[in-house]
Amino acid sequence: MIGIFDSGVGGLTVAKTIIEHLPNESILYLGDTARVPYGNRSKDIIIRYTLECVDFLVSEGAKCIVVACNTASAIAMSTLKDAFSIPILGVIEAGAKMALLNSKSKNVAVIGTRRTIESNAYKNAIKLIDDSINVFQKETPLLVPLVEENFYYHKATEMVLREYLDDLVFNVDTLILGCTHYPLLAETIASIYPHLCIVDPAIEVAIDLDSILDYEGIKCEKANKASYRFCVTDNDKDVLSVTKSILGDANNNIITSMEEVRL
Amino acid sequence: MIGIFDSGVGGLTVAKTIIEHLPNESILYLGDTARVPYGNRSKDIIIRYTLECVDFLVSEGAKCIVVACNTASAIAMSTLKDAFSIPILGVIEAGAKMALLNSKSKNVAVIGTRRTIESNAYKNAIKLIDDSINVFQKETPLLVPLVEENFYYHKATEMVLREYLDDLVFNVDTLILGCTHYPLLAETIASIYPHLCIVDPAIEVAIDLDSILDYEGIKCEKANKASYRFCVTDNDKDVLSVTKSILGDANNNIITSMEEVRL
Repeated sequence: MIGIFDSGVGGLTVAKTIIEHLPNESILYLGDTARVPYGNRSKDIIIRYTLECVDFLVSEGAKCIVVACNTASAIAMSTLKDAFSIPILGVIEAGAKMALLNSKSKNVAVIGTRRTIESNAYKNAIKLIDDSINVFQKETPLLVPLVEENFYYHKATEMVLREYLDDLVFNVDTLILGCTHYPLLAETIASIYPHLCIVDPAIEVAIDLDSILDYEGIKCEKANKASYRFCVTDNDKDVLSVTKSILGDANNNIITSMEEVRL
Repeated sequence: MIGIFDSGVGGLTVAKTIIEHLPNESILYLGDTARVPYGNRSKDIIIRYTLECVDFLVSEGAKCIVVACNTASAIAMSTLKDAFSIPILGVIEAGAKMALLNSKSKNVAVIGTRRTIESNAYKNAIKLIDDSINVFQKETPLLVPLVEENFYYHKATEMVLREYLDDLVFNVDTLILGCTHYPLLAETIASIYPHLCIVDPAIEVAIDLDSILDYEGIKCEKANKASYRFCVTDNDKDVLSVTKSILGDANNNIITSMEEVRL
């Protein structure tokens, strides 16, 4: 099975894309809801929490790992690759690649949590492929709480977006959504800044995952054999319904219960 | 020494009031910054985390405990009182008492995190003293992130406050700030709703603490003997400067370093 890890339920947007793109693969999802959010924590704590979560997925039999959390991908990826021998994919390289494919002006912007932006992970990943690209970055910590409050189209959200983005996106044609919650604000962002190509790294992650499973010879070809397991570290009463709502009506039959695990 | 516990650094507003009101008392502060915020987590997790934190304070020699965190006070207080034999004070009863002293209309409003409001802790505490008071409650989860982003006077904050409070405070004369972060928005709230008496429970907590130390015969009467120790579970690089800024210029000499503890 494929192990997907996120600090909370935001990574379910990535899980959904993978489930739809790779319908034969079994999925084990872990959201660290007892310690979410990771975005403002220190590097040491983010690495410790991420190792504990991936350790759980590996011990349960994951054949590869997708780190859906941007903060964990930005901070803990090299530690993870040293610690485990199975393939580990993050969202950063995928998002960087997709932005390069889309930008004509060679001016790209990235938004994310404090730690994701401070790490320069997206900037470094983009520069590694094409050093001539200009990358403009901004930490946007209020966007996750606004999404979690369902203020997708609220006037306050528009004002916060303008405060964060007006200067940032002035000269760019492509904006990377460097946090799994942000795709839920994509429509509002597009309505304020219609000139932008908005990049959600999840789509490229699913494509990359497909290639790597193929390359490693571990892709599951049997139709209708996939199983799904969803785990969190704090199984609050709302988690199951939020999970169903993020996965969408078409996937509602694949989840009947949420497991709580203690790391 | 007095042990003061909060889920993060917000409780330093309570610590500051106690330090100023009881200058002879030594203080041990613990902020659970590796797992903040508590406000949306399940009851079981909040109780587990709170027990671990208070256990640390007691094992380090605290003679009494102040639970500065509203969520922990609302959810874990009876468990704490069963588990420990030293005096344990929360912010809820103090805030309730202060609201009753101030309200002339007998219509009181409370704002707080999801779990604080769901618990009805303030409502129950008020009704226990005077059943004729009408208590109106609202969860206001966006206010903590707005404070943490220093958006104290931002237009977006005003719009969020209006969204949350317009209906809530229409008929009340007193508003309890049921979260340690909210006093930093008191001026903005007062400018939008000048008719409100705004209650910060910290002040009453310091007064209650004084009485209880006296009553138990454990009050420290020696001047200039107080010592101060500040601990967090994630000692991120900003924590010390944020702590100094919340304690204020007058108290800056009492803190030189921040300790990290692992629970």
